[in-house]
Amino acid sequence: MQRAINLAEHGKYSAKPNPHVGCVIVKDGQIVGEGYTQPPGQGHAEVMALAQAGEQARGATAYVTLEPCNHQGRTGPCSQALIQAGISKVVAAIEDPYPEVAGSGFEALKHAGIEVRVGLLADTVKQQLQGFLLRLERGYGRVRLKLACSLDGKIALANGESQWITGPSARRDVQRLRAEAGLVITGVGTVLEDDCQLNVREGDLPLDPNLAREATAHQPLRAVFDSTLRTTNGAKVLSGARTLFCAEPKTTRPDHINPENIVEVAALKTPAGLKNALLQLMAIAPANEILLECGPRLAGSWLNAGLIDELILYQAPVILGHNAQSLVHMDIATMTQRLNFGLIDTRRIGPDLKLTFKPTH
Amino acid sequence: MQRAINLAEHGKYSAKPNPHVGCVIVKDGQIVGEGYTQPPGQGHAEVMALAQAGEQARGATAYVTLEPCNHQGRTGPCSQALIQAGISKVVAAIEDPYPEVAGSGFEALKHAGIEVRVGLLADTVKQQLQGFLLRLERGYGRVRLKLACSLDGKIALANGESQWITGPSARRDVQRLRAEAGLVITGVGTVLEDDCQLNVREGDLPLDPNLAREATAHQPLRAVFDSTLRTTNGAKVLSGARTLFCAEPKTTRPDHINPENIVEVAALKTPAGLKNALLQLMAIAPANEILLECGPRLAGSWLNAGLIDELILYQAPVILGHNAQSLVHMDIATMTQRLNFGLIDTRRIGPDLKLTFKPTH
Repeated sequence: MQRAINLAEHGKYSAKPNPHVGCVIVKDGQIVGEGYTQPPGQGHAEVMALAQAGEQARGATAYVTLEPCNHQGRTGPCSQALIQAGISKVVAAIEDPYPEVAGSGFEALKHAGIEVRVGLLADTVKQQLQGFLLRLERGYGRVRLKLACSLDGKIALANGESQWITGPSARRDVQRLRAEAGLVITGVGTVLEDDCQLNVREGDLPLDPNLAREATAHQPLRAVFDSTLRTTNGAKVLSGARTLFCAEPKTTRPDHINPENIVEVAALKTPAGLKNALLQLMAIAPANEILLECGPRLAGSWLNAGLIDELILYQAPVILGHNAQSLVHMDIATMTQRLNFGLIDTRRIGPDLKLTFKPTH
Repeated sequence: MQRAINLAEHGKYSAKPNPHVGCVIVKDGQIVGEGYTQPPGQGHAEVMALAQAGEQARGATAYVTLEPCNHQGRTGPCSQALIQAGISKVVAAIEDPYPEVAGSGFEALKHAGIEVRVGLLADTVKQQLQGFLLRLERGYGRVRLKLACSLDGKIALANGESQWITGPSARRDVQRLRAEAGLVITGVGTVLEDDCQLNVREGDLPLDPNLAREATAHQPLRAVFDSTLRTTNGAKVLSGARTLFCAEPKTTRPDHINPENIVEVAALKTPAGLKNALLQLMAIAPANEILLECGPRLAGSWLNAGLIDELILYQAPVILGHNAQSLVHMDIATMTQRLNFGLIDTRRIGPDLKLTFKPTH
């Protein structure tokens, strides 16, 4: 199962919005087939592993990280493929809560006389597929807020100078976060100040060449929170893959923004508006991993709305002084209003520190 | 030698301002005596180890972290004690740069026919005695700046509310830093706002009971940078062990501050003034470890003056928002003026993170 979990990681950047699943087929103590989820419309992990195993699948055991699907989607049901290949036992980590599966995959297997075991390394897989599981549970995937700052919590000098506070390794790590994401969100302020493209660049990805190529071929959707549609003509975010714009209703629509890419959301800046925007974006393109890369105001709004599942902070070993711009714009008047987090991971990335937190309530 | 280095740590809180040294005497592959530096005026490590070894010292090898002294201070010269005990070989990690030793200890041993080896684990001991070595080299020990802040680099809310941003474990760790210090420095702002005592409290020390008792018995000297002597009558910093006050010359002296404790320094707030103050404090009480626990302004001045050897940052997993008070008060107008550091240690302390940095220039 651990091998299947490791294999699944190969699909992390290209299976989206499908869950990235791994499958290993074992016969007489030997691995005879391996697979992981291919890009949407292509083979699931089980089908890939069965193809590799061929005739050896007969009487073998399949280890799979998620319950095999049992419905005809863009690909045929994996449960039927396992049955037809003559698999005699399926060991799965977790059930698939997707409404069209939800136990029916296991039922179909059992009905065909296949032995089914569920629960092996379940916690590891729940962690691995956290974004997918959250999306099915509540309608949107895991929301990660990425911020970068100095030791004293500053993102830019008073004059706006901000480029390259963190080092190249940290910036490459952000590329990896983007590649994992199905949706990358920013604010119009960041677009206007940094003219960021928010895309995944193959040469900057700290991944092996095959994975980097896959990741680049499956760019995340981008969304700009731009209530009055101030994004200027020629902004880099308008080039490349599709970019959606969340704006207030009745905002004047500039010619350089495709009307099909405008998502109207009332009271966009309120907590309810942010959540509505998120759900509307999900209706257009479901995402298991949602990455928020933005300035202090939008970050503060999302944090205040309780919409952040994970805060990823890249901290550069520099001091920028009290006049510099603060990381998060939030009016906190008393200690009881402060935001509390739990530190879940610490690692050095070049000269910088990457800290991962979960909100605690 | 590693055993001697470990033993030396026992003297860390009570040997000051002497270097904390360890000594192990080995005969026929067996440890026959061990010792570490006792409080000033009491036995050095070698004398303690020789006393334990007794007659077995004859023909034995002494491992000692620092060159044995060769002068009559408050205690007799250790070189003579080793010679008289009949030690046949001395293995030392480093030479003692103290002017009255500086190789003469080794010379005396050799002159008496004792084999001398120098350099074993020298780097480890140089690290262990860094404060002492810096003091001999430049007139003042290692200066550590301790700061505590939120994730967004804030130390207090706009209304001044600041207590307990970091957790009890971090605060106990600060007690240990104080216990290591020979001098603890703060600013009058911190004294007026927090009414801190800046002492070492036995019950709060994360040390074993014997070490905690020793540490409490050897309180660091305290110094308040208080240019116009605003410290109020009844301030806690006036109770307990001695507290010095660095003030501008000709400042009106309030009755509640003992004139003997006032150190006059011209242009106190300038980089040169800060360094002069430090050297004057050293003339009164030499310290290997100097701990600066202060507010954003004094921290900024010391950092700006280039007087900080180590920055120790306790970071609590909370966000306090943009209106809260910034960690370091420094006017930095361009990126070239920013302060750069190298991260040398990361560790979790309860829910908080302790980060240690060295300035890089």
